[in-house]
Amino acid sequence: MSTIAMLTDFGHRDHYVGVMKGVIAEIAPSARVIDLCHEVPPQDLYAAAYLLATSIPYMPEGSVICAVVDPGVGTPRHAVAIEAGPYTLVGPDNGLFEMFLAAQPAERVIDLVDDAYYRRPISHTFHGRDIFSPCAAHIAHGVPIERMGDAVAPAQLVELGGWRPTFEDGVLRGRILHTDHFGNLISSVTRAELEEYIDPDPSTWRVRLGDARLPVGQTFADVAAGDALAYIGSAEHLEVAVRQGSAAERFASKTGEPPGRLEVEKA
Amino acid sequence: MSTIAMLTDFGHRDHYVGVMKGVIAEIAPSARVIDLCHEVPPQDLYAAAYLLATSIPYMPEGSVICAVVDPGVGTPRHAVAIEAGPYTLVGPDNGLFEMFLAAQPAERVIDLVDDAYYRRPISHTFHGRDIFSPCAAHIAHGVPIERMGDAVAPAQLVELGGWRPTFEDGVLRGRILHTDHFGNLISSVTRAELEEYIDPDPSTWRVRLGDARLPVGQTFADVAAGDALAYIGSAEHLEVAVRQGSAAERFASKTGEPPGRLEVEKA
Amino acid sequence: MSTIAMLTDFGHRDHYVGVMKGVIAEIAPSARVIDLCHEVPPQDLYAAAYLLATSIPYMPEGSVICAVVDPGVGTPRHAVAIEAGPYTLVGPDNGLFEMFLAAQPAERVIDLVDDAYYRRPISHTFHGRDIFSPCAAHIAHGVPIERMGDAVAPAQLVELGGWRPTFEDGVLRGRILHTDHFGNLISSVTRAELEEYIDPDPSTWRVRLGDARLPVGQTFADVAAGDALAYIGSAEHLEVAVRQGSAAERFASKTGEPPGRLEVEKA
Repeated sequence: MSTIAMLTDFGHRDHYVGVMKGVIAEIAPSARVIDLCHEVPPQDLYAAAYLLATSIPYMPEGSVICAVVDPGVGTPRHAVAIEAGPYTLVGPDNGLFEMFLAAQPAERVIDLVDDAYYRRPISHTFHGRDIFSPCAAHIAHGVPIERMGDAVAPAQLVELGGWRPTFEDGVLRGRILHTDHFGNLISSVTRAELEEYIDPDPSTWRVRLGDARLPVGQTFADVAAGDALAYIGSAEHLEVAVRQGSAAERFASKTGEPPGRLEVEKA
Repeated sequence: MSTIAMLTDFGHRDHYVGVMKGVIAEIAPSARVIDLCHEVPPQDLYAAAYLLATSIPYMPEGSVICAVVDPGVGTPRHAVAIEAGPYTLVGPDNGLFEMFLAAQPAERVIDLVDDAYYRRPISHTFHGRDIFSPCAAHIAHGVPIERMGDAVAPAQLVELGGWRPTFEDGVLRGRILHTDHFGNLISSVTRAELEEYIDPDPSTWRVRLGDARLPVGQTFADVAAGDALAYIGSAEHLEVAVRQGSAAERFASKTGEPPGRLEVEKA
Repeated sequence: MSTIAMLTDFGHRDHYVGVMKGVIAEIAPSARVIDLCHEVPPQDLYAAAYLLATSIPYMPEGSVICAVVDPGVGTPRHAVAIEAGPYTLVGPDNGLFEMFLAAQPAERVIDLVDDAYYRRPISHTFHGRDIFSPCAAHIAHGVPIERMGDAVAPAQLVELGGWRPTFEDGVLRGRILHTDHFGNLISSVTRAELEEYIDPDPSTWRVRLGDARLPVGQTFADVAAGDALAYIGSAEHLEVAVRQGSAAERFASKTGEPPGRLEVEKA
């Protein structure tokens, strides 16, 4: 049984995701569908890239990942299929998969131009239904991706950029990529980078989010209720939380956004 | 493998949908379940009718559609099964399927009175669990609908009404049926009606939503960020959007509702 | 085909539930997954216990229930598997299943200490991924729970407490356990308790929620639009609703919480 894992910013108010699943069921009736997330903030490629990078490795080998966060729908951006390790990724060529591919390099990229694998007629606004889900379903059903379009060099994929932490003058600088359901703020800084650039011992890390200094802990239990802390979350990224509270609310700017910048240096 | 597609206004805070899926799994263990939408605004039959009409055609042939938006639960309204083209529809007899049936006429209607296919005891408030999901599951499992109750003439189905655009004095008038996840306002006016009553050329359409005049485009890229436009959406209905914004917020009345009326005439 | 039913407080903004499903699909590829609810208010054990107690009985016999509402993650609380009637329950040992087990007593409890059935490495914060979903999947795939850890006496399970109504001086006192999607307030008081302690005839029940007296009805249709009523809901608990409105809003305290206490006496 093949698996198609879906991630979109389509939300749950509409029939968009259900329609994609109907299209998939017709083409690949025996495929199992797993919803990774459909509440990606609209058009937020950083949140999407983070969620993909940290969830794809938990999918069964051979899974097809169908991701649709697509600010460029209706413009001439390309639709691509990417083979990377045991997975095949399908989505718009906009950098969505870049964070995952940094750990698991693309081995083959196909520009999905053969409209024999599309569902017609093709709308201007809903390529999730008309292009991405039918192509993902055909792949899950056994069509080799090289039959579905033109080979492209992996280096030609559109770059997302802007998410890799920088290290300068002893300071590791990252950004908040995602706010989770509990109000935890998840940064672009990983445990591996902290150990390499700062120190293997977390007790030496000095963390600042905007103007706030944060203690480093292992779990919420390390601080009092209502206090903030930084810790390595379940995805091996540095996260900021408030025990029995919401870091997203505590650290929100006037516009409601979390601070853009998180910094770590050695004590 | 048979498919049951579900649409409700039960939301995701509760176990209501999960319980229906448990009931289905016991009766029709091999059926695949597809969630069309569970965030229909409570008791909003127009949104439900729109979502059903524009998603059912994407379900695999032979699918059973189980829809529960049911302001009349606990009153003597009927439960019906309807054969229409390759689909069987199950739900309350309240007009929910009318918009779909306008394109794909009902061929057979059964009043689901045989309680051998219900799950007992039957509550006053949760017929989704006690009547609609078990009946849908029995149908998906192969029970012919004529065994489950009394035949009714399709013309006897309860009318929803009020959603067909009118054309008078050169003006095509429709209403907003649904607000989607992105804040786009989806109207009852379809491309086919615009081409028939106004003009095949969209550049001649003059669109007004409440007091606002809207330019007509093909995609969001046709206007500047923050500007509103009207366009034919992926369901072939006329929609109103604000690029990188929310039409639902832009055009909300004091009570938060979108304007009731959308008008189109020829330039 | 085995069934795994999931309940968490992880919400839908993230990949947490999707990741658990990927872990399950790898270990138990033929298991069907049913989502009971993922919008349990964060760490609300009473809402979780209520939702589990009233949904598990609708799952197919043999189902494995995987529930993760886990304020103690990262502390030394235990992970348990519980056999009760035709179900096997998997989750943290924190009282989550107590309301269900009051009706369907635990027959066997295993402390899940054998990390051969975990997914490694084990994080401090996401045991849903690392412990509960892999253990549930192994059980659904046929591993007997006694192989997965040490037997514990059912009486040793951590107590939740605080949810059983009390009866004193002719007054049955309960609490609000859960607010549903429609704003209905669901209490801990059941029909069986009302019939035993007050009277079999609902017309004799005098219901008070905080300071408000509420009429008792069978369905919403028994009161005028905008009026509140108490009635026995689909889960056989006493609920409070406002017809075409939200009881949660009507009866909210200044902090937004519903009143803690509901009382019933005989007229």
